[in-house]
Amino acid sequence: MPYTSVQKIRFDDVDGAGIVYYPRFFHLCHAAMEDFFDDVAPFPYPELINKKRLGFPSVHIEADFKAPLMYGDVVIVTLSVVHIGRSSTKMRYEVRRKRDATLSFEAEITTVMMDLDSKQAVPLPDELRRVLESYLSMGTTPPRPG
Amino acid sequence: MPYTSVQKIRFDDVDGAGIVYYPRFFHLCHAAMEDFFDDVAPFPYPELINKKRLGFPSVHIEADFKAPLMYGDVVIVTLSVVHIGRSSTKMRYEVRRKRDATLSFEAEITTVMMDLDSKQAVPLPDELRRVLESYLSMGTTPPRPG
Amino acid sequence: MPYTSVQKIRFDDVDGAGIVYYPRFFHLCHAAMEDFFDDVAPFPYPELINKKRLGFPSVHIEADFKAPLMYGDVVIVTLSVVHIGRSSTKMRYEVRRKRDATLSFEAEITTVMMDLDSKQAVPLPDELRRVLESYLSMGTTPPRPG
Amino acid sequence: MPYTSVQKIRFDDVDGAGIVYYPRFFHLCHAAMEDFFDDVAPFPYPELINKKRLGFPSVHIEADFKAPLMYGDVVIVTLSVVHIGRSSTKMRYEVRRKRDATLSFEAEITTVMMDLDSKQAVPLPDELRRVLESYLSMGTTPPRPG
Repeated sequence: MPYTSVQKIRFDDVDGAGIVYYPRFFHLCHAAMEDFFDDVAPFPYPELINKKRLGFPSVHIEADFKAPLMYGDVVIVTLSVVHIGRSSTKMRYEVRRKRDATLSFEAEITTVMMDLDSKQAVPLPDELRRVLESYLSMGTTPPRPG
Repeated sequence: MPYTSVQKIRFDDVDGAGIVYYPRFFHLCHAAMEDFFDDVAPFPYPELINKKRLGFPSVHIEADFKAPLMYGDVVIVTLSVVHIGRSSTKMRYEVRRKRDATLSFEAEITTVMMDLDSKQAVPLPDELRRVLESYLSMGTTPPRPG
Repeated sequence: MPYTSVQKIRFDDVDGAGIVYYPRFFHLCHAAMEDFFDDVAPFPYPELINKKRLGFPSVHIEADFKAPLMYGDVVIVTLSVVHIGRSSTKMRYEVRRKRDATLSFEAEITTVMMDLDSKQAVPLPDELRRVLESYLSMGTTPPRPG
Repeated sequence: MPYTSVQKIRFDDVDGAGIVYYPRFFHLCHAAMEDFFDDVAPFPYPELINKKRLGFPSVHIEADFKAPLMYGDVVIVTLSVVHIGRSSTKMRYEVRRKRDATLSFEAEITTVMMDLDSKQAVPLPDELRRVLESYLSMGTTPPRPG
């Protein structure tokens, strides 16, 4: 089961064409990741950043925009884990309109756990790894031959 | 003569009503203040923040919105200094559409020079005070009786 | 009783000094106003804008910044109504840290109900006026002499 | 030769980890595309949107983050054209720190020309196609065998 974050499209999320400005979709994803940490990870994201001095910067993104969003839409952002490496995590996000479940956006975003002071990659803490594993998505893995 | 910063209204500056989202006007003012520091102050704003660990947080604002701005507008933001105290500075900003000089927004914003680590107010450095004095606006001072 | 909106300070709400960027406080207020319309007004804000083609642009602001906010703070934004005119409404906002109720920000923001197509001020609809009246704050009114 | 847009990292572009918030990189790209239209295309982007009612929404993105940016950095964003279809354009963006030419970010972003009212894809106007062709990048094409 993916993690789910419900978010309101705000008055300032739209652009001059009257639809959600495309960089805001990545903000929706980041907010969902913050909510994921705050709700189910062993430490909230602010504690990770401010106290543990660990960050989770993005290194690679692939994203598809499927349907525009408008002011007044409420969205359901789902987050699942596609791959867990030593320091890296590939997460999958889907943004759907709550009203009719239309898929608006999907992305796979790879992050690397980083020591914010040394700027070096560090291994994922075990307690975080266990939580990430529980959100591993099986859906995108091709079936293994028998 | 006030300091002048020319800025483009960007695709994401508008809101769901198709006009510039009102909090963005304060962003236009802050960007003008950054440009002011970068161009004419004894140290650029990033150096003030990152090296000197001094900040310039806002403590009081009075602002009037006169005419909306649209995507595609280019604006001229003028900054002048209304009052200089020991730690405080009151700056006056006017935002005008470049095309026809229409006044869109005016604000007086009081800031206090603060040590970012101790969170205490500190006196304005003399070299900065001298620059601020050269942008003192006489315009809003009531005439003295003879 | 004022209307209350609880909001999370997000990862991108801070500035280069590590505290919430001051224009974001007005965004917190606007989000609270959107929540107010969505929750208790006769029509949600998106319907007001998109269907009724009525807006509520700000015309005057007075604001005081009392204590900085940091990433990780959760805030309680309260909205009450200070004055109701024919087309204008003056609202009072207070932003407090949820953790310890510290007052971080307070503002009085005057808006005018506007027809978005004609750009003319229009009288507040009666059904909205009644809701606004129920949030009239008595607190800032001076006591009447006996 | 790619098109070049120089941009200042602003006080609000950073996140709680003190580096540029990753969705802002897409904003840097969009601002560069707006500058491209305003400077060298047959019509500025606001005219495309507001008068011609044509938009250029993103449909697919692949992006790599190479080195973080900080407050105070100035960046050079280069835009070149990788592929031109009937309605689609694939653009390549590179964001480099001006100071030392460090590559911070690269992305390929596919957009589709869309009628904003009918929400249908439309062919690229010939006058725009000619300009896009003049920014076609040869760099990413594999060498042809002799």
